Amino acid sequence: MELRLAVAGIGNNIAALIQGKYFYQAFEKTRREGEALPGIKREIIGGVRPYDFNVCACFDVHPGKIGTDVSQAIFCPPNCYPDLRVNVPHQGVSVVEGLTLAGGELQGMEQVIRELRRTRPDVLLYSLPTGLQWAADGYSLCCLEAGVSFVNCTPEIVARNPERMAAFQRKKLALLGDDLASHIGASVVHSALLELILKRGLDLVRSYQINIGGNSDFENLFVNGKSKAASKKNAIAHLTGKALDQVEIIPSGGFVSQLKDEKVAMISIEGRGWAGTPFTIDLKLKVQDSSNAAGVIIDLIRFAAASMRDGIDPYAEADSLLKSPPKVAQFAHTQSHSGPNSNGSKPSVCTAPTGQ
Amino acid sequence: MELRLAVAGIGNNIAALIQGKYFYQAFEKTRREGEALPGIKREIIGGVRPYDFNVCACFDVHPGKIGTDVSQAIFCPPNCYPDLRVNVPHQGVSVVEGLTLAGGELQGMEQVIRELRRTRPDVLLYSLPTGLQWAADGYSLCCLEAGVSFVNCTPEIVARNPERMAAFQRKKLALLGDDLASHIGASVVHSALLELILKRGLDLVRSYQINIGGNSDFENLFVNGKSKAASKKNAIAHLTGKALDQVEIIPSGGFVSQLKDEKVAMISIEGRGWAGTPFTIDLKLKVQDSSNAAGVIIDLIRFAAASMRDGIDPYAEADSLLKSPPKVAQFAHTQSHSGPNSNGSKPSVCTAPTGQ
Amino acid sequence: MELRLAVAGIGNNIAALIQGKYFYQAFEKTRREGEALPGIKREIIGGVRPYDFNVCACFDVHPGKIGTDVSQAIFCPPNCYPDLRVNVPHQGVSVVEGLTLAGGELQGMEQVIRELRRTRPDVLLYSLPTGLQWAADGYSLCCLEAGVSFVNCTPEIVARNPERMAAFQRKKLALLGDDLASHIGASVVHSALLELILKRGLDLVRSYQINIGGNSDFENLFVNGKSKAASKKNAIAHLTGKALDQVEIIPSGGFVSQLKDEKVAMISIEGRGWAGTPFTIDLKLKVQDSSNAAGVIIDLIRFAAASMRDGIDPYAEADSLLKSPPKVAQFAHTQSHSGPNSNGSKPSVCTAPTGQ
Amino acid sequence: MELRLAVAGIGNNIAALIQGKYFYQAFEKTRREGEALPGIKREIIGGVRPYDFNVCACFDVHPGKIGTDVSQAIFCPPNCYPDLRVNVPHQGVSVVEGLTLAGGELQGMEQVIRELRRTRPDVLLYSLPTGLQWAADGYSLCCLEAGVSFVNCTPEIVARNPERMAAFQRKKLALLGDDLASHIGASVVHSALLELILKRGLDLVRSYQINIGGNSDFENLFVNGKSKAASKKNAIAHLTGKALDQVEIIPSGGFVSQLKDEKVAMISIEGRGWAGTPFTIDLKLKVQDSSNAAGVIIDLIRFAAASMRDGIDPYAEADSLLKSPPKVAQFAHTQSHSGPNSNGSKPSVCTAPTGQ
Repeated sequence: MELRLAVAGIGNNIAALIQGKYFYQAFEKTRREGEALPGIKREIIGGVRPYDFNVCACFDVHPGKIGTDVSQAIFCPPNCYPDLRVNVPHQGVSVVEGLTLAGGELQGMEQVIRELRRTRPDVLLYSLPTGLQWAADGYSLCCLEAGVSFVNCTPEIVARNPERMAAFQRKKLALLGDDLASHIGASVVHSALLELILKRGLDLVRSYQINIGGNSDFENLFVNGKSKAASKKNAIAHLTGKALDQVEIIPSGGFVSQLKDEKVAMISIEGRGWAGTPFTIDLKLKVQDSSNAAGVIIDLIRFAAASMRDGIDPYAEADSLLKSPPKVAQFAHTQSHSGPNSNGSKPSVCTAPTGQ
Repeated sequence: MELRLAVAGIGNNIAALIQGKYFYQAFEKTRREGEALPGIKREIIGGVRPYDFNVCACFDVHPGKIGTDVSQAIFCPPNCYPDLRVNVPHQGVSVVEGLTLAGGELQGMEQVIRELRRTRPDVLLYSLPTGLQWAADGYSLCCLEAGVSFVNCTPEIVARNPERMAAFQRKKLALLGDDLASHIGASVVHSALLELILKRGLDLVRSYQINIGGNSDFENLFVNGKSKAASKKNAIAHLTGKALDQVEIIPSGGFVSQLKDEKVAMISIEGRGWAGTPFTIDLKLKVQDSSNAAGVIIDLIRFAAASMRDGIDPYAEADSLLKSPPKVAQFAHTQSHSGPNSNGSKPSVCTAPTGQ
Repeated sequence: MELRLAVAGIGNNIAALIQGKYFYQAFEKTRREGEALPGIKREIIGGVRPYDFNVCACFDVHPGKIGTDVSQAIFCPPNCYPDLRVNVPHQGVSVVEGLTLAGGELQGMEQVIRELRRTRPDVLLYSLPTGLQWAADGYSLCCLEAGVSFVNCTPEIVARNPERMAAFQRKKLALLGDDLASHIGASVVHSALLELILKRGLDLVRSYQINIGGNSDFENLFVNGKSKAASKKNAIAHLTGKALDQVEIIPSGGFVSQLKDEKVAMISIEGRGWAGTPFTIDLKLKVQDSSNAAGVIIDLIRFAAASMRDGIDPYAEADSLLKSPPKVAQFAHTQSHSGPNSNGSKPSVCTAPTGQ
Repeated sequence: MELRLAVAGIGNNIAALIQGKYFYQAFEKTRREGEALPGIKREIIGGVRPYDFNVCACFDVHPGKIGTDVSQAIFCPPNCYPDLRVNVPHQGVSVVEGLTLAGGELQGMEQVIRELRRTRPDVLLYSLPTGLQWAADGYSLCCLEAGVSFVNCTPEIVARNPERMAAFQRKKLALLGDDLASHIGASVVHSALLELILKRGLDLVRSYQINIGGNSDFENLFVNGKSKAASKKNAIAHLTGKALDQVEIIPSGGFVSQLKDEKVAMISIEGRGWAGTPFTIDLKLKVQDSSNAAGVIIDLIRFAAASMRDGIDPYAEADSLLKSPPKVAQFAHTQSHSGPNSNGSKPSVCTAPTGQ
């Protein structure tokens, strides 16, 4: 089955997503019996494989991207995701100018709605730089108008806005967000170690986590990282089940341009065991930042599409892929009036792949 | 309640255990309301606090230790556990010559049994260097004869010997082992990270773990580490639920004398995520090796004593503290005929401490 | 011989310096024949040992410090240098209110000059927070007026100001600065590795250095680190003899309060060797930030005092202890007209210690 | 100018060397004005560029290698140097059976000498596994007989044997060795840091270095590393100018097969600065082990060839590339009677490359 995808923000995440499609298509050709797709947890969701999506609409405001085919736009600076040397064919989809803010006024809604109606995507992926609440609001309203589900990759408040959520549910559209949990990021690694220490009865004395990178996210976060630090502390509290005052987090310890889209996280843990004797853990994690996002996005867009087709709860499995999901209780409540399958026996959207 | 403890092998583990007793006694004097004992998960087991034990009998074969009070013997080289600067008073318990092997003949059984009968310990802690199966056999037989429960800190086969286990159970004595899981060791840390990677659907490409230290364990293991490597791989397979061919383990990468009783583990993990892009984790763990043992021993001897007094299953909670426990099913079976409380509603031996 | 010291800015550097004095005095009492003083390169400079200084005047503007004896003021927050558990006796020297800026107007010059004339120090150590050029100017003018030599710990421009330098030289006073090279800091370690790579003919591909800490310096630098980054890049260019475009430096990757006065530097180097095959170096340096300063300050104040007494060139040996010294040529020129010993055969100020 | 090379031992070093030749040849085709050859310090030695050598004779005893063209033999397991994806053409040179030891008797001398006479190499590179003194002796005697210079990559004693050295000099042949200093290895990195610490007057408390790898060297060294540890300690003493009792070295902390020809060195340094406050350095070096050798071999064979042609002292510049060179004094003495250019004004063999 094919998933039609619209994208707002043609940044590194999209460079990773589209190159990944062709990477996996090529992989299939030499795939051995029983071999798993590398980096893929759920091979099929709602009948859709990781490479069964087509980008049908693209929005951005960068002059170098507007009007070019998306297969070229993904390599336009400041994008810095590596060229994976897979053959990305001409997509036949040009980047269209997206929403802008001029004099406090949102502009371009009509054009975006028209483009969505023309191209009829199943899902719009919202992946603009962090901090543009007006854009997240604008694109989600366009989707409501055009009948398109919405996945929010950013910490902007969309799915946590109860009115917005209710509006999407009334139209039987999925609204998934907010913010992504990385596929393998500093928060989950840090939490796994802290959880282990608490579980085994050792004392946590102090711990810190510092992240650096060379994409524009890290440039933004270096000056404006307080809310991100709070969000990351919440993520750890959520994962370990305990607010840990001893933990300090620096979301961006520096913009190191040479790292490009690579991210480096350094984690330090100091504790005490028997008789107060000390132990320390020092860890360095290196990861391709936007691969970390794309590995989660591929599931979210498939959950969103499956939810629209089959009426099931998209949060049932997607919850662990999100940093700030809306309260499930609230969702369940409204959902119970709107979906044909919301009777408690939720149908599974994941099909066990033959090859795993 | 007081626990009477016999010890075979007055090495670093015992130096940690006895100094810890006085560390925690001193800590209690200035303990604040609600403050936890550092490094202690279970404050009370069967009515016994971590400092409620008295060493009543000591066995060793080192000439420098025999005949000296145990408060001095614990600082006799090659012991190299740090002096914690707590005041360890004269214990009034001299180290007695333990079992020896001369001409293939086990010697000293009678003396050990006599000493055990004279001093009437609840539990004997077997903590000799790794590799002396004859000694583990000998001391466990002495305990059977004298009516003393047995805790085996080493990988020697005692609790996994079904006949030996049955003999202890017939006499309503506890037999706990074999081998300790460290309080916070390389195996549990490595496993926590590998488990996380598998759970999140990333590919594990290759991983290794190397341990170094400066106590005599590391000198032994450097030349004779194959069985230990296998045991550590089993531990990881057990903890992650999967045999991982990509993982290599070096139990002792070197005897570095300057580290003394400190242990350093280096863990490297390489994997792949979305579109096959790589990620790496590099970790260094530093820990006081014998504190790592003592933090687990303190629970095992209390579980053993509680089991004798109350007839409960000592493995119910101790299982996670052991690397190679006997099959629980087997234990449960024989236990069901021997203990007054073995009716399925096992009484809990852990009392929630007031101070936590 | 005794060195009389005035101090402007009673921060962590002074906490390290004064505690160090009593640490070394105590060390002398149990010093063995031939044993070196730990962390001291030059045991005697101009007849003065590292503990032969007395603080005779103190200036600060912190309300909690003014009026208290300097032995207490050094422990007043936000100072966070550790208490070394040496006995620092009452010094009989209260902190006096220092220079302030009110309405663009420098205030307190007369009081500072009066205090300097009253207490007659050999040297004033300028150690205020980075960025207060007006204060560096003010205190140096006070010193000129009162006839006191001046050592500048900060990147403010004092010794590099040719007129100021000339004025000090006319009065036969030493002026040493600007900025300190750490005793063992990220710049010298990073440079040593880069130099090695260049010397052995390997290719440097990219490298970065990130520093974190928990004292107020790191809080300041996190928001205002551009000039410090440039200064650190210059230091590396100076040390390796080559401007290295591949190197990026983050002076403060984050204020991590739990680190207090501890500093952590992370250095990453990637290069290529034979046939372009890669190599990498990852390094972590942990150091007590203000000890790093005090270990250099102790030599600078002794060089300054020796220069006044003996008329020798204080830069002859102090150059490697400074990040931004004035041009030596210029100094030598003016010096040649002013000092009795400036005849080319500079007397050495360092005496080989008996105990090394 | 072309250098004709014979090789004894077709292991990873030769796989690196030969692939490197074609890597640099390809690199030249797209080389930009002023661009350096990556990983090459001396572009021209005695008129020879790094790719100006031809392998004309090959000796080995591995059944899988004998009789095959050297372009294939370099990829025969247990060789594990990576395939660099450069095009290595058929060399037209088959591997010939080398010297063997049967019943304490050296066999194959005549065949080796005959092959050397037939192929007329300038230099034979001795690169067998460590520990075969009989083979090093045998091949060097064959070279004497056939009039071929000799470069010894191993710690076996050849150049340090004064009689052997004299015999080579009488025949005006070069004899260069013994053992290679890695291009960028643990010893030089460790020494650079230790030297820095001593130079800046800090105290070294303790330090260790551990090396791991997955080629057969590491398998050998793990069981037989004592002499290598001593040699590495000597190297550090030599480089830092001081015997450092605080330093411990583990040449092989483990054979980790997954690392293949990659080598990982972990270095830890603990010291004390001002007032005895501690500092620590933790470093991890990853490098391609045989590239590390090849980057030095390429200079040694060129120095040897240049020495034969021009009669100059091959040790003049090669000294820093060797771990255990013979005493230079001794060499200079004998040389003064044998070479036409040994008049004190040694001609330089290095020509400044135009492109650097």
